[in-house]
Amino acid sequence: MPLTPFFTPNGVAVIGASATPGKLGHGVIANLIRSGYQGPIYPINPKADAILGRKAYPDVRQVPDPVDLAVIIIPAPAVPEALRACGQRGIRAAAILSGGFAEVGEEGAALQQTILDIAREYDMRLVGPNGVGVLNPHSGLNTTFIEQIPDPGDIAFLSQSGALGGALIDWAKGQHIGLSYFASLGNAADLTETDFIQALNDDPHTRVIATYIESIHNGPRFMAAARQVAPHTPIIALKTGGTAAGARAVASHTASLGGSDEAYSAAFKQSGVIRARSVQELFDTAIALAYQQPPRGPRVAVITNAGGPAAVAADALARNGLQAPEPDDATRQALRDALGDYPQLVNPIDMLGAASSPEYEAAARVLLASNAYDAILAILVPNTANDPVGVADALARAAADADKPLYACFMGDVSIREGRQRLHQHRIPVYDFPENAARAIANALRWHWVHESPPAAPEPPDLAPFQAIRAEIQRLAGEGRGYLAEADLYPLLEDVGFPLAPWTAAYTQRTAEAFTSNFPGPFAVKILSPDILHKSDIGGVMLNVPAEEVSKAYWDLQARVRRRARRAGLQGVLVQQMAGPGTEVIIGMRRDPTFGPMVMFGGGGVYVEALRDVSFRIAPFSDEQARQMLGETVAGRMLLFGARGRRPGDVDALAALIRRVAALALAIPELAEFELNPVIVHEPGQGVTVVDARAVLADRD
Amino acid sequence: MPLTPFFTPNGVAVIGASATPGKLGHGVIANLIRSGYQGPIYPINPKADAILGRKAYPDVRQVPDPVDLAVIIIPAPAVPEALRACGQRGIRAAAILSGGFAEVGEEGAALQQTILDIAREYDMRLVGPNGVGVLNPHSGLNTTFIEQIPDPGDIAFLSQSGALGGALIDWAKGQHIGLSYFASLGNAADLTETDFIQALNDDPHTRVIATYIESIHNGPRFMAAARQVAPHTPIIALKTGGTAAGARAVASHTASLGGSDEAYSAAFKQSGVIRARSVQELFDTAIALAYQQPPRGPRVAVITNAGGPAAVAADALARNGLQAPEPDDATRQALRDALGDYPQLVNPIDMLGAASSPEYEAAARVLLASNAYDAILAILVPNTANDPVGVADALARAAADADKPLYACFMGDVSIREGRQRLHQHRIPVYDFPENAARAIANALRWHWVHESPPAAPEPPDLAPFQAIRAEIQRLAGEGRGYLAEADLYPLLEDVGFPLAPWTAAYTQRTAEAFTSNFPGPFAVKILSPDILHKSDIGGVMLNVPAEEVSKAYWDLQARVRRRARRAGLQGVLVQQMAGPGTEVIIGMRRDPTFGPMVMFGGGGVYVEALRDVSFRIAPFSDEQARQMLGETVAGRMLLFGARGRRPGDVDALAALIRRVAALALAIPELAEFELNPVIVHEPGQGVTVVDARAVLADRD
Repeated sequence: MPLTPFFTPNGVAVIGASATPGKLGHGVIANLIRSGYQGPIYPINPKADAILGRKAYPDVRQVPDPVDLAVIIIPAPAVPEALRACGQRGIRAAAILSGGFAEVGEEGAALQQTILDIAREYDMRLVGPNGVGVLNPHSGLNTTFIEQIPDPGDIAFLSQSGALGGALIDWAKGQHIGLSYFASLGNAADLTETDFIQALNDDPHTRVIATYIESIHNGPRFMAAARQVAPHTPIIALKTGGTAAGARAVASHTASLGGSDEAYSAAFKQSGVIRARSVQELFDTAIALAYQQPPRGPRVAVITNAGGPAAVAADALARNGLQAPEPDDATRQALRDALGDYPQLVNPIDMLGAASSPEYEAAARVLLASNAYDAILAILVPNTANDPVGVADALARAAADADKPLYACFMGDVSIREGRQRLHQHRIPVYDFPENAARAIANALRWHWVHESPPAAPEPPDLAPFQAIRAEIQRLAGEGRGYLAEADLYPLLEDVGFPLAPWTAAYTQRTAEAFTSNFPGPFAVKILSPDILHKSDIGGVMLNVPAEEVSKAYWDLQARVRRRARRAGLQGVLVQQMAGPGTEVIIGMRRDPTFGPMVMFGGGGVYVEALRDVSFRIAPFSDEQARQMLGETVAGRMLLFGARGRRPGDVDALAALIRRVAALALAIPELAEFELNPVIVHEPGQGVTVVDARAVLADRD
Repeated sequence: MPLTPFFTPNGVAVIGASATPGKLGHGVIANLIRSGYQGPIYPINPKADAILGRKAYPDVRQVPDPVDLAVIIIPAPAVPEALRACGQRGIRAAAILSGGFAEVGEEGAALQQTILDIAREYDMRLVGPNGVGVLNPHSGLNTTFIEQIPDPGDIAFLSQSGALGGALIDWAKGQHIGLSYFASLGNAADLTETDFIQALNDDPHTRVIATYIESIHNGPRFMAAARQVAPHTPIIALKTGGTAAGARAVASHTASLGGSDEAYSAAFKQSGVIRARSVQELFDTAIALAYQQPPRGPRVAVITNAGGPAAVAADALARNGLQAPEPDDATRQALRDALGDYPQLVNPIDMLGAASSPEYEAAARVLLASNAYDAILAILVPNTANDPVGVADALARAAADADKPLYACFMGDVSIREGRQRLHQHRIPVYDFPENAARAIANALRWHWVHESPPAAPEPPDLAPFQAIRAEIQRLAGEGRGYLAEADLYPLLEDVGFPLAPWTAAYTQRTAEAFTSNFPGPFAVKILSPDILHKSDIGGVMLNVPAEEVSKAYWDLQARVRRRARRAGLQGVLVQQMAGPGTEVIIGMRRDPTFGPMVMFGGGGVYVEALRDVSFRIAPFSDEQARQMLGETVAGRMLLFGARGRRPGDVDALAALIRRVAALALAIPELAEFELNPVIVHEPGQGVTVVDARAVLADRD
């Protein structure tokens, strides 16, 4: 999609322009004029001759050349006709501000489909409906009702909420944060966040894409686009809905732990998108990446004229995974040469209250030239002895030719407003508090890693080996089965190479006995019933049973379960050789409606839900990603690196099993949830053993 | 300590007043005049006749009545003489702004002691040295160099960093946050944060105490004072230094997990102090509690004119432990009566972009009167259709007679500045973003709980029973022992009623055998060596050894350890009956330099350090506090409430053991660290069993 007709149109027709002040259709014309849009403006209104001095036309088909963009702000039922007229006039871009479409229910959704069909027919692209339009501070284009057009800059801001977008633009204006474009996506009937992200990648005005997301329209397409764009143009996303409690009851740990928010986090991580956790963090990060190159490592030098903020900064850096190492000898000597003998040349470097602009400049120059640091944070607290504007200019001079970033934190408000504004002009990112600075620097470093090691599209796994067992699962689903227990799954999993401990389904005592004579014990004896999903909850599992006691266990177990689950159909027991020593982990899968199969790895045992020691990835993913999942959990790090009194585990086999679960999920869409719990991870070279499995089948349409 | 001479003095002498603009001694006189201080101002300067129109005196002893306060801003070596002169003149309060005392080393510390001695001699109280003085916006008193005096208000702000204090006052000025007083405590040679907190409790101008703390001077005294004050006057503390890595190597899990930051958190919690995690949160919380009564529960109704911010707010509320329940039928009906038929009367209630001031007022009135909610959050995003000042006034009208709090979030900047200012005037707490509002509301609710259930001073435990074993530990310490292993500790712990599994120290194979014939097995066999602190790290523990194998284990274990610890003195083995089934936990103690003995409870096993599933309390503490420790950890909650496939544990016995560790620590200051790891918690009524113990002895002076 080309951006030009939306952001740099030559001629704008406003369908629904009004001569009455206070009406939205009047405000749009007024804003186009006030914001300084230089192209022709055509109010479309059958009853007016002119609006705000611009000749009005009764029908868009009568508008002369040039006209690239239509802004539509009329009641929803009239939109299709107006859109058709635009198409006939040869307009190829429309921003539909009207509400009353998919957001109001089924009828509106049908109307939305109608306008989409019309757009397709005439080869038009749409923004909206139900947004506030588009805005280009560079050209003065403002099709919104937002009065305060932001300063021109290089952050493109895409918002799924028009209102939030408006508030943020108002805020950005006050903070002197410049935007390249703003698009209010509304219902995104046609153009989505993904389209804009793709189009903005090559845009010369845009250095950073900041986006407010309520829901992504097509998960895999978004991930593919972001993977392409993010390494070149940073994408920062604020996604809400993070803590919404799941609506339906879930049958597996994976489903209860991995909701849609975890899917978004995983998708962002895998496609190089930086996730902001607040509106403030979104823009704090955006200016960090728009104004300066990112840091190439975590080592931050702090210069300050006050000890208190230095302590706050040191804390905040550490909390965000950054470091504040002491200066090395060369840097210390250079600081001494530049500043004279300060009491303590440590990091943070406190130049005391009276620190002058030349001192800030000198210290910043030394630190920017030092090999000991990857970034500089300069903190200023106002007092009668200093000059915030002078310090801003001094920092800009120091940063001008540096090969690493400099960030500023000017604390206070009234005394440093002008200094902050000057920093924005100099393109030095400036923050209210050290905490904000630390978060933004950490995000900038995250992006540096995305830039250095762009996320690769993973090789799709070979799904052919799974086709036979898919047919079998389809057959079971056809019988109306809602879930599959281990006795259903084991034969299938064995066929596709899952490492199972030797087992048998013993429908008779004799089968159980025969099995135990073939394998050394001890054994796990588990109830065999298509009606019981959580066996251990009702005492349906006996562990460490010696061979000679398996016959007794066969009867005891069924009697015990019978007391607690009177109606369950009991078919006998499943006998399985106990796995050798190792660490219990869990591997699971849940199908996310936006992104598709999401695989979970986590520590096992009863603590799994309570501790949330889990990590997620959207399938497919690389072996490297599978190993990163281990690194993101305590249980996984113990397997990777060992721990007091414990040896590492066979992480090669474990990563392979995690990816096998991903392949299974991709091959068999009938699986809604799937879980191996526990899996025993043995010592390196000894592999892993699956000792329980269950699956939930998808509801059939 | 009385506040009057510092904050409402009748007459101020400025020792070190200067006639030269730009000097600090000039700035103080200028600020006193500019801020509108009405009492007499006496510049003390031997060379000037008058400064800024005020008659100067060569010596403070010549100053006429009235003079309550001396501000001292001369080089440090001259301060003792000046202070003595103040004492002779009958001045009983001095704010010492000069630096060059304890903050610069030993010589300065001696000088600081000298001025403290002089103050004691003349019955004077001191603020500082090395601060920026005091400030009272109500009376115009401003002894600082801070130019912008904040609006008068009811938040007292105490800062250990003068510079940070200055920046925050500047910020507060810009945000229209009013202060009752500001005191810059500097080195706090005499008056500390604790003195001010005690004195401010009865102050009619102060509703909230906000404090920036770098370190507390006397932990137990602070806790006692805060316990008294916090239930009446909220205390909010920002404490830095949270992530500083411990400097010395530590010998126990407790010491590695429980540093000084955990001690501060525990002390704050036990004394009712609300801990803020950022400067923004400090003041966001302060206005919430200064302007409005706190919520009495977690249920928040959100009204908004935009969906995006509503989604952000719902997230933020949930993340902060608050709830946003749907309106009940009565509230829904009342909303319908007040607003007409909105599409969806759900929470958050979106009144759409054009929501008018009367609509905000009507909705707020209904929700403030509803029994379904404990607090209301009104969000406004600016657009051309609304009037932020009008909405501010409307909200104030609705809140005027309500018996619950109303908070506002006006998003944006330039368009809502005036509206925000109006909200401050109306004493409606207003926030930039929903996240800030949610954090502040959650903190206000926390304070409500402090107010409803004030933290009680715990009964000090009876230490007499510990005196005999203290003597024994002193004897061991006298032998130069650095730590005590389980064989040292067990006899002592048995004497004071710790529940140990039966054990013997077997210096010979025969002793080991004799022991096993008296108790049913199996047994734990552990190496007995005064040189080995972490037995399991070098294979020095064998578990589940049957009675008939204990003799073999006696030799095998010593041989195995010998291979890995060649120089360790091996004395035999310790044989202990394996405890019955239960859950492993850890109980530990570390002596904090500020607050004294700090007790830790946490989940046991190899995960303890990795998961940080631990809770801390400063000793002594109540049985209720011990149970709260359980509630703050995953392991403890499982013991309290059970978990899938697990029964609860004997939490009565566990809480008693946690408090017994606290009593031991209070009774025996020679113990620097102490740890029971693991303790096995059995089912209710079955008690707990200690199966390992170690202690580190304090370094002797």
